[in-house]
Amino acid sequence: MSSAAEANTFTSEVFNPLLRQVEIADTTETVMYGGDRNFDLVGEALGDMGQIAVIGWSSQAPAQALNLKESLAAAGADTRVVVGLRSGSASRPQAEVAGFSEADGTLTTVEKAIKRAGMSLLLIADSALVREGQRLMALAPSGAHIGLSHGFLMGHYEATGQTLRDDINVIGVCPKGMGPSVRRLYEQESGINVSFAVEQGDDRARDRALGWSLGLGAPFAFQTTLGREWRSDVFGERAMLLGGVHGTVEALYGWKRQHDVNPERAYTEVVESLVGPISEAISHDGLEGLFDRLSPIDQEKFSEAYNAAYPRLLELTHKIYNDVSSGRELAEVVSDNEHNVPMTQVDGGDMWRAGERVRAGMDEDRRQELEIDPEVAGVYVAGMMAQVDVLREHGHHWSEVVNESIIEAVDSLNPYMRARGVAFMVDNCSITARRGSRKWASAYQAWISQSVLPVIDGVRSNPDSHDHFGDFVNHDVHRALRVLGAMRPPVDISVS
Amino acid sequence: MSSAAEANTFTSEVFNPLLRQVEIADTTETVMYGGDRNFDLVGEALGDMGQIAVIGWSSQAPAQALNLKESLAAAGADTRVVVGLRSGSASRPQAEVAGFSEADGTLTTVEKAIKRAGMSLLLIADSALVREGQRLMALAPSGAHIGLSHGFLMGHYEATGQTLRDDINVIGVCPKGMGPSVRRLYEQESGINVSFAVEQGDDRARDRALGWSLGLGAPFAFQTTLGREWRSDVFGERAMLLGGVHGTVEALYGWKRQHDVNPERAYTEVVESLVGPISEAISHDGLEGLFDRLSPIDQEKFSEAYNAAYPRLLELTHKIYNDVSSGRELAEVVSDNEHNVPMTQVDGGDMWRAGERVRAGMDEDRRQELEIDPEVAGVYVAGMMAQVDVLREHGHHWSEVVNESIIEAVDSLNPYMRARGVAFMVDNCSITARRGSRKWASAYQAWISQSVLPVIDGVRSNPDSHDHFGDFVNHDVHRALRVLGAMRPPVDISVS
Repeated sequence: MSSAAEANTFTSEVFNPLLRQVEIADTTETVMYGGDRNFDLVGEALGDMGQIAVIGWSSQAPAQALNLKESLAAAGADTRVVVGLRSGSASRPQAEVAGFSEADGTLTTVEKAIKRAGMSLLLIADSALVREGQRLMALAPSGAHIGLSHGFLMGHYEATGQTLRDDINVIGVCPKGMGPSVRRLYEQESGINVSFAVEQGDDRARDRALGWSLGLGAPFAFQTTLGREWRSDVFGERAMLLGGVHGTVEALYGWKRQHDVNPERAYTEVVESLVGPISEAISHDGLEGLFDRLSPIDQEKFSEAYNAAYPRLLELTHKIYNDVSSGRELAEVVSDNEHNVPMTQVDGGDMWRAGERVRAGMDEDRRQELEIDPEVAGVYVAGMMAQVDVLREHGHHWSEVVNESIIEAVDSLNPYMRARGVAFMVDNCSITARRGSRKWASAYQAWISQSVLPVIDGVRSNPDSHDHFGDFVNHDVHRALRVLGAMRPPVDISVS
Repeated sequence: MSSAAEANTFTSEVFNPLLRQVEIADTTETVMYGGDRNFDLVGEALGDMGQIAVIGWSSQAPAQALNLKESLAAAGADTRVVVGLRSGSASRPQAEVAGFSEADGTLTTVEKAIKRAGMSLLLIADSALVREGQRLMALAPSGAHIGLSHGFLMGHYEATGQTLRDDINVIGVCPKGMGPSVRRLYEQESGINVSFAVEQGDDRARDRALGWSLGLGAPFAFQTTLGREWRSDVFGERAMLLGGVHGTVEALYGWKRQHDVNPERAYTEVVESLVGPISEAISHDGLEGLFDRLSPIDQEKFSEAYNAAYPRLLELTHKIYNDVSSGRELAEVVSDNEHNVPMTQVDGGDMWRAGERVRAGMDEDRRQELEIDPEVAGVYVAGMMAQVDVLREHGHHWSEVVNESIIEAVDSLNPYMRARGVAFMVDNCSITARRGSRKWASAYQAWISQSVLPVIDGVRSNPDSHDHFGDFVNHDVHRALRVLGAMRPPVDISVS
C-alpha cells in the first residue's frame, strides 16, 4: 500500500546546527533535534517580534505562554509574552496567578494584544476560532505572524471557501499532547514533540515556527503542512486514537459476552489487555515485538483475527479519511456546535460499569499478570495498520503517520483509558474529537460486530482471501516505528 | 412541539371531482381520492403527451410503465408508453417479456425516448441520476415534463448549486412502496398511495402529476414539494423506518442479554414483539390503542421507558434532520458511491443468528401468543414520536409526517423484518437508504445503550424531569393518525 513518498526536507540558517536528515523507511525527513534546549536560537528566531500575544487560556495557552516566556528569558531576548483575554473572561485570575498582570502590560484584551504583536498565537477552542478567526487575524499588523496549534481553522476555511489575508504570515506548531503535558514536560526538561508548518510565508517564517517549537521545549520537531496536520489529526481521533479503539473494545466485549464470558472477565480480557500488555508491548518493542511475545498458538489466532479484520477496517478507514478530507466532517462539527447537539455519556453502558469494578480491584501485581489476548491484539493492530496505510496512501509523511497512528495511541491515549476509563480518555480531548470519536466508535462497533467477528467465529466466510497478515509482517511501518520510536520525549507524556 | 401549519390545499379543473378537503388534526389538506380508478381523467390529463418515456428498468420503472400503459389504454388515450434503456442494458429481455418491443417502437434508447416524449419519467438509481440527470433533462423538448419518483436529485442539486432548465416542467410522483408493490396492488385494483409535487410548472403541470398518480392506480394522492419529499424520505429511512428501528432492536437485545435473558428469548421479546403485536396494534388501533392494550403495570413500564428515551432520541433525531437537510448526508452518499465504499452485512451479528433460529420455529399459533414487551414498545414509540415532532417542527404536513413515520413502518417495513429478517428489510431499499440506515442504526444503538437504558435500569438518573409521556397522551398525532389511517390502500402492501 505504501509508496515511496517525496522527501520531507528543509534547511534553516538559524537552526542548521539542530537539523538532521533522518532516514525513515523509504524516505528522508529533516527533523529538528531540540533536546539540548539551545534557547539562544529561540532568541535569534523570535528576538525581533517585540510582543508575542497568546490568545485564550484553556489547555494549550497557559502552557505555551509560560514555556515561551521562560525560554525567551533564558535567551536574554527582549520579546515579551502577553496574554490576551476577552473582557469578562473567567480565566483572568488564573492568568494572574501564573504571573501575567495588567500592571506590567502582560495581561490585556485580545484586541490590544494582537494589534501590538509581531506574533499572535490563537489558542482558543475550535468553535471560537470558527466564529472569531477572521476578525482576530484582521487585527494583526501587516507582516505579523499568526500562529495556530491545530489546522482545524484551515480545514474550515477550505470547506467554506474563505481565504487568508495575504500580508500576514500564518504558521503552525502542533504539540503532540495536551497543554498540561506541554507544561509539565518542559519543567522536567524533557519537552514534548511537535509538528510545525508554514501555511503562508517564506523561509524566515519557518524560522519563526522552529523558534516557537524550540521555545516550547520540543525535543523533536517534524515538518508538515496545516492541510495534512488537520486531516491526520481529525482523522486519527475518529479512527484508532479515540473512536476506533472505543468501538473496537465495545465490539470485542460484546463478543466475549456472547461467548458467555462474565462481564468482569470480558472487560479484563479486552480493555485491560489492550491498554496494558498490548499497548506496552507496542510502545517498547513495536508491532513486531507484540507479535513475538505470543505463543505459536496465539500467533495463529492473532493472524486469523488480523486477516478477518484488516480488509473490513481498511474499507471503513478509507471512508473516514474521505469524509474528513472532503470537509464534511468539520462541517458536521460546526453544525452540531451551532445546534448544541448534546453528547452521549460514553461510559454509560454495561461494559464500563463492569470496568469500574475491575479497575477498583486492579493493583500493580494483578496488572503484571495480565495476558495479551491474541484476538483483541489482532483486531486492534489491524485497525491501526488500516489507519497507517490510508494515511500513507494520502501522502502523509512517516513522522506524521507513526506519531498520529501508533505512538500517540500507546504512549498517550490508551494510558488515559487504563487509568480512568474511556470517558476520561475521550472527554479530555477537544469538542471536535469528542463529537467525532462518538460518531465513529459506533461505526467501528457495527463493522466489527457485523463483518469481522462472524468470520473469526467461523459462522461467515471471509470474502477476502488475500494474506494481509503477510503484508503486515513485511511492512515498512516496522522500520519507521523503530526510527521514530527512538525520537520520543525522554519523559513519559501520559498520566503521571 | 407541533404548531398549526399552513393549510396544504389546491384545486384542479380536471381532477376536481376527485378532490376532498380533509381535516387532519389542526390543518386542512386537499387529497385526491383515486379509489374508483376514473381512468378517463388520466386520458384528460395525459392524452396530449404523445409519448411518455419511462427511463430505466429497476424497481419502479417496470411497475410504472405497465400501470400507465394499461390506464391510458383503459382511457382510450393515444399516448403511448415507451421504455428507454441505455444501449447494452441487461434489462432489455425483461422489458420485452413485459410487452415492450423495438418492433412497435415502445422499446428504444434513452435518448430517443426522451427526445420524442411529452413526459419522461427518470426512474434510474440515485447514483445514475446524479451522474446523468442534467444530460437527460437536456434531451427533453422545450415545454416537456420531467418526472421523478423521489426528490433525491433536487437535494443533490440544492447541495451542489445546480439549477434546472427553465423551459421544462419538473414534477414528482412518489409511490409509498417499492416497484413490485406498485404493480401488484394495481393488478389487485387497490393501488398504492403516492405523494406528488410540482417542482417547476403551473396548475397544468399539477394536472399532469395527478394524472400520473391516478394512472399508477393511487387510491389517495397527497400534495408535497420535492424539497420536503426528499428530506422526509431520506430522514425517515435513517430514523425509525430503517436505521432507527434496527439500532433500537440491537440496543434492546443487548440490554436483555445483559440481564441474562438467553439469545432466542431476547430476540423474541425484542424483535418478534416489535414486528408482531406492537406493529399490529399501531396499525389497527393507533399509538393510543397500543398503550391501551397494556396492563396497568406494563403501562407504567411503558411510560417510564418513554420518558427515558424520548428526550435523548429527540436530540439524535434533530441532528439527523439537520445532517440530511443541510445536504451533507446526500453528499456523503454520493461520495461513498463514487468510492465504492462496501456495506456491512447487517444481519452478521449474534442477534440475527438467534433470530434465524427463532423464525424457523415460529408458526401462526406461536405468533398469536406473542406479548407486547412494554419497554420495547416504550422506547420504539418514543423514537417514532421524536421523528413525528422533528418533521412537524420543520413544517412537513401531517399526511407526510404520519405516512413517513408511522404507517410506512408498521404496514410496510416492519412486516419485511418479520418475514425475513433485518437484511431483507434494509437491503430491499435504495442504496441511499441502505447506506444511511447502516450509519444511523449504530448511532441509535449507541445513544440508547449509553443514555437511555442506564436510566431505565436506574443506574443513571434522567437529567430531564419533564413528563414527555404526558405530552404523548395529548398529542395531535392521534387525531392525524385516525384520519390518515383510514386512507390506506384497501389491499395490504406488505409482503404477501
